[in-house]
Amino acid sequence: MPELRKDPIMGRWVIIATERSKRPNDYNVPAAEVIDPSKNPFAEGNEHLTPPEIFAFRDPRSKPNGPGWQVRVVPNKFPALRVEGDLEKEGQGMYDKMNGIGAHEVIIETPNPNLQIEEQPVEGVARVLEAYKIRMEDLLNDPRLRYILVFKNFGRQAGASLAHPHSQLIATPVTPKHVKEKLAGAMQYYAFKDRSIFEDVLRQEVREGSRLVYENAGFVVFCPFASRFPFEMTVMPRRQSAYYAEIHPDELMLLADALKVALQKLSKALNQPQYNFILHTAPARYAHHGYWTTIEHDFRWHIEILPRLTLIAGFETGTGFYINPTPPEDAAKYLREIPV
Amino acid sequence: MPELRKDPIMGRWVIIATERSKRPNDYNVPAAEVIDPSKNPFAEGNEHLTPPEIFAFRDPRSKPNGPGWQVRVVPNKFPALRVEGDLEKEGQGMYDKMNGIGAHEVIIETPNPNLQIEEQPVEGVARVLEAYKIRMEDLLNDPRLRYILVFKNFGRQAGASLAHPHSQLIATPVTPKHVKEKLAGAMQYYAFKDRSIFEDVLRQEVREGSRLVYENAGFVVFCPFASRFPFEMTVMPRRQSAYYAEIHPDELMLLADALKVALQKLSKALNQPQYNFILHTAPARYAHHGYWTTIEHDFRWHIEILPRLTLIAGFETGTGFYINPTPPEDAAKYLREIPV
Repeated sequence: MPELRKDPIMGRWVIIATERSKRPNDYNVPAAEVIDPSKNPFAEGNEHLTPPEIFAFRDPRSKPNGPGWQVRVVPNKFPALRVEGDLEKEGQGMYDKMNGIGAHEVIIETPNPNLQIEEQPVEGVARVLEAYKIRMEDLLNDPRLRYILVFKNFGRQAGASLAHPHSQLIATPVTPKHVKEKLAGAMQYYAFKDRSIFEDVLRQEVREGSRLVYENAGFVVFCPFASRFPFEMTVMPRRQSAYYAEIHPDELMLLADALKVALQKLSKALNQPQYNFILHTAPARYAHHGYWTTIEHDFRWHIEILPRLTLIAGFETGTGFYINPTPPEDAAKYLREIPV
Repeated sequence: MPELRKDPIMGRWVIIATERSKRPNDYNVPAAEVIDPSKNPFAEGNEHLTPPEIFAFRDPRSKPNGPGWQVRVVPNKFPALRVEGDLEKEGQGMYDKMNGIGAHEVIIETPNPNLQIEEQPVEGVARVLEAYKIRMEDLLNDPRLRYILVFKNFGRQAGASLAHPHSQLIATPVTPKHVKEKLAGAMQYYAFKDRSIFEDVLRQEVREGSRLVYENAGFVVFCPFASRFPFEMTVMPRRQSAYYAEIHPDELMLLADALKVALQKLSKALNQPQYNFILHTAPARYAHHGYWTTIEHDFRWHIEILPRLTLIAGFETGTGFYINPTPPEDAAKYLREIPV
């Protein structure tokens, strides 16, 4: 009998196929892409192929927009949103629109086009995670921006148009719908129970253990109870904190370790599958709106790792329901047993 | 400058790239699949390869589960949900789950494996649409089922695992999240304005005309103001009706005409692109819950046609925000000008 499971925060139901549980070998994974070095705008030596850099970790004697960097942040050459201009909200009959103000940046994770993030040393992963924090802190100063999303598309079907390891940042002038829903879910739970739903999830996952993948002193990695995607993982901090930008330096190293282990296990279990990861943090301006007074206590930043082994088709698009052919308990068991 | 547009019903924002508007030729469309007739379970003569049929339009002298049919409805051989059993809702710590009770059926649209729905005569399309109605009416009698979704995945990347023309029906024991949100949006608008949001959308689209694709006596086809996908279309009935199952026989013919024209234009404009279409109707049991008293007036059934020319990547999954590289006004202009 398949099982319906409800995500406690989003209120979203998922169909878990418990009978014909798909194992890692049952999924097809496309072959890795080959990069042509001369046309790769993210390669060291090709810095002139991107817009001028916004930020970089680089050797003290190197010059901006030249070689000698470890992590480099540049504006997206084809941005979905633009920094220049005014918001200019307006109605059009019954419809609402505004100018596409925002930021769209690319975080180039390494000069090496073939070094995936999980193959970097922990210090290298931590440097990428610190770049996320530094860019967020900077963009939080712009009063037009309400939300900052950092995410990574790995593989062409997961949305990556370039194969060189990179993540992206998009800052939007409105709080996106899913974010509002997650915040509302967390706030309602807190109002009802006087406890953080994230803390309750974390405790149940650690106590039950059946969906646990990995833990260290700062972070817990598990396959969520109502996983939408096979081999989906959540990386959750043990310390309550709504804003990723407030992460401590020692936590960056622990997060780097947890993320590296999670992605290494995923890559080994499924032969480098395509995936998205998404950094969920509280929106920039909610605190200033006055009405969101418990966000510091009720919401916790976290990372979702979403392997793209299944398709988002008509049923999922129409209903918001997902069908997951691998129960998270099975996925967690496979991932736990992969040595890294 | 890109533009942010808000869907008036769902409250979902979309980024419309107005500058580098992508034209039909800018999208890659994969080649059509070749079907091996002997392995095709939906072909005439292969009826034994499917579970026994639930319903069929067939010649009076033909026998069930043999040749001689025009439309045939069978249970999905690998169902996401099952009809047999009890719901058995239960908690598991802080989580909620229930048995995967429901229905998952396949509507085989024609015995001809190469005749796409838009290539059928209007009467053939109407027969498929009537089969949807007949199956809905039957399933509405099952008190365990809350929602019935009819949808079509065309093309492998859109989720179709078999190329023979077919649609699907999934009935769920809970009302899906997106459906609840759409109902809530419609109800709030009605409470505020005392008018149906669907009627207001329809009037503005007909009056402005810039997003109109096609209209007949019963239906209007347009590219919605906050289209999530390039060349997205909505097929909206002129007559207020919350439940698709209440469609009149003459409306079936008009809907068949509108759907055929819309899909023909799409197929010609983009060289048979992959797409999903989704039939949105009011849930079965809301009326019986008592609290949804205006649904007959505030909600209207409709069809969404969602071409799959762009990828749903990390940003979309993380935020519910979509990036649409073809403004709906441009898409509608292309589609209007395609002769059919």
